[in-house]
Amino acid sequence: MLHLASETPEAWGRWAVAHLDTIVLDHAHCERKAASNAINLIFRYTDQVHLMAPMSALAREELEHFEQVLAHMQRRDIVFARQFPSPYAGELMKACRVKEPERLLDTLLCGALIEARSCERMQLLHQALVDDGCDDALAALYDSLLACEARHHATYVELARGCSIVDETALRARLQVLAEHEAAVVARLPTEPRLHNGVP
Amino acid sequence: MLHLASETPEAWGRWAVAHLDTIVLDHAHCERKAASNAINLIFRYTDQVHLMAPMSALAREELEHFEQVLAHMQRRDIVFARQFPSPYAGELMKACRVKEPERLLDTLLCGALIEARSCERMQLLHQALVDDGCDDALAALYDSLLACEARHHATYVELARGCSIVDETALRARLQVLAEHEAAVVARLPTEPRLHNGVP
Repeated sequence: MLHLASETPEAWGRWAVAHLDTIVLDHAHCERKAASNAINLIFRYTDQVHLMAPMSALAREELEHFEQVLAHMQRRDIVFARQFPSPYAGELMKACRVKEPERLLDTLLCGALIEARSCERMQLLHQALVDDGCDDALAALYDSLLACEARHHATYVELARGCSIVDETALRARLQVLAEHEAAVVARLPTEPRLHNGVP
Repeated sequence: MLHLASETPEAWGRWAVAHLDTIVLDHAHCERKAASNAINLIFRYTDQVHLMAPMSALAREELEHFEQVLAHMQRRDIVFARQFPSPYAGELMKACRVKEPERLLDTLLCGALIEARSCERMQLLHQALVDDGCDDALAALYDSLLACEARHHATYVELARGCSIVDETALRARLQVLAEHEAAVVARLPTEPRLHNGVP
């Protein structure tokens, strides 16, 4: 129940393994950005009390993942450095409506879709790592993380529901619209190795 | 070993208890800002690998405290809302030098001093709550948190040391200069009830 409107081809996993160190570095950046975005939501929506504790707990978990990825980077001798990010999140968020409360609803649903796509990609990466056999510890990490991403997806959808901005039918319709936009964004992403980019 | 250059009078604790709900709300905001600042350091100093994991762990702990304070707010029927912040941190950080690597050193040492002042204030708040007997659960919270603040102070100083920008003598001298600036800032703070403001 990830609500994605497109499926990443299995070949993506093999391609990611072929560029593993670059993908892992991008993943570290993604986790810290996910934490930062969750905290920014707490800052921006002080009046949405129901967001506070769940967003804070989600940010904590993203930071824990960040630290786990850092440890694997150290083990693999990957140097932490700046990296040109995937335009994925920026392009996705362009679909958010500007006016409140629609902006909050869309931001939460886009958050849900980012987690969903991460979950799908980590599943492929996990499987490709198992098939390749090059790094069992990293394969195990992605196996554990993909379950968290699925849970975070559900958390974002549930928080969007908790805003009571629209009824359930309208919420599902909006999620579908944004999922189709997300699929269109993914289809035109560049092909540098990143967690959310396409296969060359 | 908090390296503070001035001592808050005990009366501050009684004054804080007399404005408890306002102080607790300010405290919630302080915790989320502390988390946000730690994550911002990770973003800004990608090349300072030794900061990454400790800053991430510190941010997680600040968020955990944020959630703890939220729970006490809910119990006390305090509504989470925006609040005009104390000018404390902004005034303190004005002493940070602009050029790197001095800017990083000063930022970490100012972080250490903020944690130190929080620790000192929480000790007074804890004692005043015990004396007053109005909220034992909150008294226990501040007792547990003040130990964390002292630990965070030590973490920031240790990370400043780890940057190897100056030798130990120069590091201690700079900490002393910033501590004196911090004491001067505290002395001229306004008197709205905030964790870092003065006594009217």
